[in-house]
Amino acid sequence: MTTRRGLLAATALSSLLPRQGRAQGQAQGQAQNAAPTPAAPAPELLVEKKVFEFANYRTRGGANLAAGRIGYQTAGTLNAAGDNAVLIEHFFTGNSHAFGRYAAGEAPGYWDAIIGPGKPIDTNRFFVVAADCLANLNVRDARTITTGPASVNPATGRPYGMDFPVVSIRDFVEVQKLLLESLGVKKLALVAGGSMGSLQVVEWAAAYPEWVERAMPAIGTGEIDAWMLGWLDIWEAPIRMDPNWRNGEYYAQGRQPPLQGLTEALRIVTLHSRDRAWAREFGRRPVEGQDPARRIGDRFAVEQWLEDAAAARARVSDANSFLYLTRANQLFLNEYDSTEAALSRSRARWLLLPSVHDRVFPVEYGRELAETLRRLNRPVEVVELKGPLGHLEGVVGIAQAADAIRALLAH
Amino acid sequence: MTTRRGLLAATALSSLLPRQGRAQGQAQGQAQNAAPTPAAPAPELLVEKKVFEFANYRTRGGANLAAGRIGYQTAGTLNAAGDNAVLIEHFFTGNSHAFGRYAAGEAPGYWDAIIGPGKPIDTNRFFVVAADCLANLNVRDARTITTGPASVNPATGRPYGMDFPVVSIRDFVEVQKLLLESLGVKKLALVAGGSMGSLQVVEWAAAYPEWVERAMPAIGTGEIDAWMLGWLDIWEAPIRMDPNWRNGEYYAQGRQPPLQGLTEALRIVTLHSRDRAWAREFGRRPVEGQDPARRIGDRFAVEQWLEDAAAARARVSDANSFLYLTRANQLFLNEYDSTEAALSRSRARWLLLPSVHDRVFPVEYGRELAETLRRLNRPVEVVELKGPLGHLEGVVGIAQAADAIRALLAH
Repeated sequence: MTTRRGLLAATALSSLLPRQGRAQGQAQGQAQNAAPTPAAPAPELLVEKKVFEFANYRTRGGANLAAGRIGYQTAGTLNAAGDNAVLIEHFFTGNSHAFGRYAAGEAPGYWDAIIGPGKPIDTNRFFVVAADCLANLNVRDARTITTGPASVNPATGRPYGMDFPVVSIRDFVEVQKLLLESLGVKKLALVAGGSMGSLQVVEWAAAYPEWVERAMPAIGTGEIDAWMLGWLDIWEAPIRMDPNWRNGEYYAQGRQPPLQGLTEALRIVTLHSRDRAWAREFGRRPVEGQDPARRIGDRFAVEQWLEDAAAARARVSDANSFLYLTRANQLFLNEYDSTEAALSRSRARWLLLPSVHDRVFPVEYGRELAETLRRLNRPVEVVELKGPLGHLEGVVGIAQAADAIRALLAH
Repeated sequence: MTTRRGLLAATALSSLLPRQGRAQGQAQGQAQNAAPTPAAPAPELLVEKKVFEFANYRTRGGANLAAGRIGYQTAGTLNAAGDNAVLIEHFFTGNSHAFGRYAAGEAPGYWDAIIGPGKPIDTNRFFVVAADCLANLNVRDARTITTGPASVNPATGRPYGMDFPVVSIRDFVEVQKLLLESLGVKKLALVAGGSMGSLQVVEWAAAYPEWVERAMPAIGTGEIDAWMLGWLDIWEAPIRMDPNWRNGEYYAQGRQPPLQGLTEALRIVTLHSRDRAWAREFGRRPVEGQDPARRIGDRFAVEQWLEDAAAARARVSDANSFLYLTRANQLFLNEYDSTEAALSRSRARWLLLPSVHDRVFPVEYGRELAETLRRLNRPVEVVELKGPLGHLEGVVGIAQAADAIRALLAH
């Protein structure tokens, strides 16, 4: 139970706040099993948040972005051939902070367990890049840099709001390609990412097969089908319902953002991304002092936890960006006739990491992606992640795949 | 494709409107395969909606209902011993209309495929009863009779609203027992129901083991764990968010009910109750004339369908009743230390009908219920339902279990 409780506490925020990794919780867990003499602390990988600016980007939907910027971070050194680069793609609520720390003692990135000196994605060998996506959710987070509906529209001097053009996962890829080219990258030894990151991995492999040597989609899917289109719509509906949303016009002075709707949207994401084994921790106990069997307004502890976790997340997030992100996810592979048509373009070697208790992208979607790749005679390995967190195992449980990642990168 | 399309059309409303069964769709499907000479029409089972009134009911939470009423319907004849009764329990959005038609040519009940003269639950042999639950959702449906938050509080002369006492699945059982006793029933040859109905089946078998000879929970679970507590809370949250909800005080003249919130809540239930194979029908096509890749306000066809289906359902439903129903589900088995403690009281023979693609009560919950019963040495058979509708297969696909139900009732 101690381990479970530790896990719960460690993951409460880690899954929600990109800069609060699970590594601390893991370190605690390891410490419990360690020999009495404490090991020397692991050397910390320090990273710096940088800005990439671009101009006159034409979106896949045909709109023009006169100016844009995204944040990014790197570790390791690009070789002369420019072909030892690794690109890490983040999940829906994430940002570029996949590895390292911005300052000694700060929380590490969400995939720090597998990225760093001597780690499976070895920064002594690879030049590792991770960027914030367009319309990134974490608009109020000081270390997230993005262009989206909360950005100022140069044509009006005011935030775009719902005038921001629709962007797709493919747009994320295009802007990342501009960034990589600006850094001198010629080829990606690996593109890897979890959840929404996995969608970007697949789009990369289909759009630029000559760039992508290896592809590692975690907790992924080869399609966003109608069932998932519907779920994404349900995720975002509370925002549109919030009277403070005002069709996205809430940025002006004196207006309240639709915090209630955004919190509710994030509450759905938070529960959907987890599984029953995680929730077991709460049992059926009510909030202390409350009695749901007698008072209709009283609640169970799990309900309150979801509310608090989502409200904390909402404070650094932007509601319109949530809407643009769900749309980007809905548009996954929208420029191809089918998943098979997209994947048939790929020349990569694949490592798939579905999670067996995933409720967002159920494991059969990952298995079908593997089958499609095999049918196309593409090299593919599959490691199924296990653990109580369901979908989130692809983020906080990624160390399970450490050996498979080393094997993928060994040759 | 014709079959799929037919299925979609037939189930579009059937799953949402309790009086619109799938049988018509099935009959059409059968007609396509039939010999040129049309078969004689099946004899129609006609049923009548009746009212059961009760007084001074003390809820399990300790409140007093001075007066109450629920609707019910019966078929077949009770024998002298009073022990040939079958009780059918309805699902979350359902009512007593499980079998028969209220008038010739009208739609049959939702389980009409298995209940009627000569059918697996044979009304020539059994006295079959089905009742509307307390706080039934279908308050604006003329053929649903219930006592809940929309009912007039005799103490004030106005609707209860959120002053209605909390009721639990066990309360549903208690009121049904009063009804059955009023009809002279001494024993239940079978208690059967799907989804929320399955919870009532389990509560019956635990509370009154001497009454229940056979128990048939379909698309069921042996527990509402924290993960499900959380989902039920997410189902209802849009109602609480709707400014028209006003803490449940929307019944007064001139006030608008929280239709938008109720529609959104029902939209979640509608998608959650289905599965990806159902959604495949829609593909990724947009609403006609719309372009989600270019306009953020444009939508996919599946989104529009869910909206329309849920809005139709909302028009006959009551938002406060939705809140009381979710709470009743959350309180499943709340008077027992554990599922095992509850089931150890049962003396019934069990037939479990989980659905393999169920997303509401995932199939492993049904399998665990079976394991628990086996561990307790209770006789249990399991038939796993298949089909594109996921959870809803337990309603519209129940004919899959016809042989197993006949076997259960054969001795």
